Amino acid sequence: MSSDFRTAAHTLVDQIADFLECADERPVVTLRDPEALAAAWPMEIAAEPLADLAPLVARICDDAVNQHNRRCVGHQVSAPTTPSLLADLLVATLNNGMASYESGPVSSALERNVTRWLAARLGMPEGADGVLTSGGTLGNLTALLAARQLCLADFTNANQGANQGDSRDAASDKLCVVASEHAHYCVERAAAVMGFGDGGVVRAAVDAELRLRGEAVREAVARARDAGRRVVAVVATAGASPSGAFDPLEELASTCAKLGVWLHVDAAHGASAAMSRRYRSLLAGIERADSVVWDAHKLLSMPALVTAVLFRRGDVSYAPFAHDADYLFEPGGPPARWYDYGVRNMECTKRMLSVQLYLTLAATGTDAIDAYVTGRFDLARRFGELIAQASDFELVAAPRCNIVCFRYSGGDGGDEDAGLQDRLRRRVIEGGRFYLTRTTIAKRAALRVTLMNPRTTERDLIELLDSLRTAAAR
Amino acid sequence: MSSDFRTAAHTLVDQIADFLECADERPVVTLRDPEALAAAWPMEIAAEPLADLAPLVARICDDAVNQHNRRCVGHQVSAPTTPSLLADLLVATLNNGMASYESGPVSSALERNVTRWLAARLGMPEGADGVLTSGGTLGNLTALLAARQLCLADFTNANQGANQGDSRDAASDKLCVVASEHAHYCVERAAAVMGFGDGGVVRAAVDAELRLRGEAVREAVARARDAGRRVVAVVATAGASPSGAFDPLEELASTCAKLGVWLHVDAAHGASAAMSRRYRSLLAGIERADSVVWDAHKLLSMPALVTAVLFRRGDVSYAPFAHDADYLFEPGGPPARWYDYGVRNMECTKRMLSVQLYLTLAATGTDAIDAYVTGRFDLARRFGELIAQASDFELVAAPRCNIVCFRYSGGDGGDEDAGLQDRLRRRVIEGGRFYLTRTTIAKRAALRVTLMNPRTTERDLIELLDSLRTAAAR
Repeated sequence: MSSDFRTAAHTLVDQIADFLECADERPVVTLRDPEALAAAWPMEIAAEPLADLAPLVARICDDAVNQHNRRCVGHQVSAPTTPSLLADLLVATLNNGMASYESGPVSSALERNVTRWLAARLGMPEGADGVLTSGGTLGNLTALLAARQLCLADFTNANQGANQGDSRDAASDKLCVVASEHAHYCVERAAAVMGFGDGGVVRAAVDAELRLRGEAVREAVARARDAGRRVVAVVATAGASPSGAFDPLEELASTCAKLGVWLHVDAAHGASAAMSRRYRSLLAGIERADSVVWDAHKLLSMPALVTAVLFRRGDVSYAPFAHDADYLFEPGGPPARWYDYGVRNMECTKRMLSVQLYLTLAATGTDAIDAYVTGRFDLARRFGELIAQASDFELVAAPRCNIVCFRYSGGDGGDEDAGLQDRLRRRVIEGGRFYLTRTTIAKRAALRVTLMNPRTTERDLIELLDSLRTAAAR
Repeated sequence: MSSDFRTAAHTLVDQIADFLECADERPVVTLRDPEALAAAWPMEIAAEPLADLAPLVARICDDAVNQHNRRCVGHQVSAPTTPSLLADLLVATLNNGMASYESGPVSSALERNVTRWLAARLGMPEGADGVLTSGGTLGNLTALLAARQLCLADFTNANQGANQGDSRDAASDKLCVVASEHAHYCVERAAAVMGFGDGGVVRAAVDAELRLRGEAVREAVARARDAGRRVVAVVATAGASPSGAFDPLEELASTCAKLGVWLHVDAAHGASAAMSRRYRSLLAGIERADSVVWDAHKLLSMPALVTAVLFRRGDVSYAPFAHDADYLFEPGGPPARWYDYGVRNMECTKRMLSVQLYLTLAATGTDAIDAYVTGRFDLARRFGELIAQASDFELVAAPRCNIVCFRYSGGDGGDEDAGLQDRLRRRVIEGGRFYLTRTTIAKRAALRVTLMNPRTTERDLIELLDSLRTAAAR
């Protein structure tokens, strides 16, 4: 296996390097009808091995979204950097399992150190701790499982009935979380998975800048309690998916402390602002959150999926799955056996995510990460200015991070025409030079750009506006 | 980025190839105290990038479990093959997001085709469908979410109250799953996450060959119903983690059909038997299951995590997350928008798992997969014979797949000494030539070997027995 690995891997590396070198010249994406594309990829798995992988690799590259094209300004996924790809290849090769310390010694040891290092970047106190998991959806569920565990343990006092996450023995009332309409859909999903039932997410209103404020939280918590719901957690967002908004965490931490409710911050997108000296103040107060989710496959430029779930109090980082390992979790007691991560995170076998993170961070260096995050946030602000200055575009909200929402408003139908933004986006994408997304904010369609690629320039964004104008003129 | 990728990736490929070439000569694992290992890996992340990655990579290899050593016969994780590592590198580079068709066109199209191809390997009828997800724990949860959805939809008739997975509006009774004590711990975890509460897993007894039988299921379902529990699903196992046992699926399918209960088969480990002409009969009846989980990072030799969740009825493959996308799921109605996988699996952003699977399968060919699976199962049987013939070892159960459980019984204390097996295992591991695991079966400690490495030979296993004897003599 080793000798054929050497030859075959060198060949693929050259093919990938060739692909990366001409990434900007290749179409960003060629969208075809899903049925047609599925028909173009029949499962012809032969008995014999494929002699030459290169043509198949080339076809896959053709039919994928080209994240490495600097005019790909669509989704919140990274164009992975060289260090992250190298770390990923090493991790795939070693393939340690991670369910117990023995199945992955170095990755378990590093999981402790990496999560604590990340928690320190957020300003969390010494003693903060966490786990790594495969993706933000699982990360948010993990944090909310901890919140549920603590909520029920608190309620039943002596933990009776709490270990199975069941409130029904302990109380006749129901559980819920409080979140704004701009919270990621995985919050609603987590509530549904946990069986909170209809009304499991109580919605709090956002302010004019699309932020969840303390007053709205107080109102929503009161509403939930009036309806007989116990509030497991308030979910704030740092870097909301639709708009990039950052909720005021200092204010929310104070509100939640007064209400006696767990504050969870979904900072999957926004937590990396902590790496930017210029922008880390966006996260002020995050160190007071009970739990935080941070995706490394977003602004830490790693390939999917690498997510950190961080807990301010190290002991509660043992709570989410305490139901199947009582010996690990004694609220208020000393944490035991930190190194058996299989009972501390949702997964049994998982990838060596800690090695991936550690190696990527070390190989990149914090200055380069700062420069990247700062540069993308700066560019988004500059793009916001360009839009504000243009007579035929309007900004939905001032950009807070690298997400910008805007509308074309220069057409005859104006922006009253609900389908206009969608049509313009479709036409621009069909041109093959740009990929951007759409969203709905305050019930109105908007165009949406996420600046993930490190090489996207102001000139590219000016060209994007021109392309939208051209599309509108057609 | 592209030019530095070429140079750096070639360098790493050579380092990895060197590592693989001497994998058998390097220790399988050097287990150190967790605290000491964590202290040996301080988070020294400099401002500047690391000039040379090689020393760090070498240290990580030293402190990891060496899965590629052919005497690593421990956990159920693969020593990834060359095709799987190449596929993984391509997928990491492209990094399409997969939440919607647009964010990953080719991987969405291939997700449909790959899951249907896998379902066909299991003999499932045309119309079977599924999703890919990150790991068996998430896969089993996904299948059980579908079962819950159908159970509640069925109960409430008009779907009222079902979409949020909440039985409490619809019924005063509680939910549970039925599983044997040999079911993976993730089944208990899934029940706890879903809020089933104490008694959320009703245990059914196993027979002398550690299998869940129809009679035990009938008894457990009756017991659950007597206790006021609604049975969401019966969970059978194909290739149980502790012993490698295969439950008799034909019998269980008939039992569940009669009882009107969903049959879920956790075949994370065992489903790959379908690729072996000699051993596929172990899975007889699996095509009648309502849902099946199949881990490709086990016997399909891929790096973690690649899991398929397969549903016999294609329409119910839309059920698990129907609560957040009603338009996708109409029980009995035509499935719509199959290509938006973000609302069909737990994850939002995920890796391009379908491309990883497709490319690995195509590059390997079905004959080589058959030879690998058959060879490992054959070797386990041969090892079972060697143990049965030895006067100082005893077999816990006849091996069914590539998992073998046995005990050393030649010592003075005999196997009455509960700590004996653990001490022998520890001593052998410390020698650095072997890594094996332990388990508990029928309340007694046992040694456990999983034959994942394609190069492990009978001679290696004879040496393992001799090493255990030597350890016992000390």
